[in-house]
Formats: sequence, structure tokens, C-alpha cells
Amino acid sequence: MSDGVTFINVFEIDADRVDEFVGHWRERAELLRGAPGFRDVRLHRALLPDSRFQLVNVAHWDSEEEWRAATQSHGQFQSSVAEAARVATPNPALYQVVVEISG
Amino acid sequence: MSDGVTFINVFEIDADRVDEFVGHWRERAELLRGAPGFRDVRLHRALLPDSRFQLVNVAHWDSEEEWRAATQSHGQFQSSVAEAARVATPNPALYQVVVEISG
Repeated sequence: MSDGVTFINVFEIDADRVDEFVGHWRERAELLRGAPGFRDVRLHRALLPDSRFQLVNVAHWDSEEEWRAATQSHGQFQSSVAEAARVATPNPALYQVVVEISG
Repeated sequence: MSDGVTFINVFEIDADRVDEFVGHWRERAELLRGAPGFRDVRLHRALLPDSRFQLVNVAHWDSEEEWRAATQSHGQFQSSVAEAARVATPNPALYQVVVEISG
């Protein structure tokens, strides 16, 4: 298996809207389960309410092409993404791992 | 083993300074290898130079206490962190995983 690609989305959102947002995020993420190339996704919530970025989504895909195919042609997913942008400012991008260290 | 805690640092940095920064980041991260409670760390680099956040560091620790002990009382580590802040704006915070989905 190749290294794949990492999709990271850093959200700017008011701490008091996080609970509502997480519920919708979970429904949206479930739409991707089983998509070709999808490996896993984790949504991280800041422990402190004054952290600048309250939510960070880290997902792993086999390839950029499969990520694109699964997310950009999925009508229900896209409309949910558009709805989510009304309460949180997303900063999505694709990444590669450049350093990895294990303890 | 418990779920542990996730430390995420989102960096704002000019794309043309990323190469230099990554080299120093690697040296700094090596200082934490073997620290009690350290599990692993990955530094992610954006595939595109115009992504807002060029670098995202995701690290896993057994506990907040061990993360704090390893990073905040380590003189060489701290001075390297301070040096790094001259070329990149860090946004560090601790997170918990609130949703996890596997494909």
C-alpha cells in the first residue's frame, strides 16, 4: 500500500457552536465510509474553548484522485459541506507526510 | 492503553521558507523521541504552495501531563521552539478525538 494522501481541514468556529457542528460533521463523514480509497478520518476537538482552531479534521485516502472522486461529485455530501460553511470557516487542503517519528 | 491526547500545531509560514523550517523541525522532534508518554508525531506539508496552512504537526501522547513534562521543561527544545517562531506562526493546542470513522 502506498503512503496515500492526508486531507486536513482546520475549522474556525465559535466554541459554543461546536456541539451542533460535530453532529452534522459525523453524518457527513458517514457518507464517505465505503468510498473507494477512503481509509479513515478523525475529528479532533480542542480541549480548551479559547484555542484558535476548535476543530481539526484529519483524513487518510489512498490517492488524491480517489479523494476527489468521492467528495467532489457527491451531491448530498456537497450540500452538507455548503451548509456547514455557514457556521464554521473551513481551511481544507491536501498534505503529504514529510517527517514521521515514533516513540 | 487509554485514548491519550492529540497535540496539533498549525503553522502559518511562507511556502519558500518551508524547506528550511522542516529541517529544524525534524531535529526538534527528535529531542522528544523516548520521552515518557510520547507515541508518535507526523509533520504534514501542503501539496499546493498557496494553501493557507503549509505545515500541520499532529502528535500523540499518552497524557496531557506527560506532554507537558516533556516539552515545557526541556531547555534545548524550548529554545528551538522560540527560534522557529521567528519564521513561522505556530497555533498549538491539545485535542481529543470526538469522531473516528474507518473505511
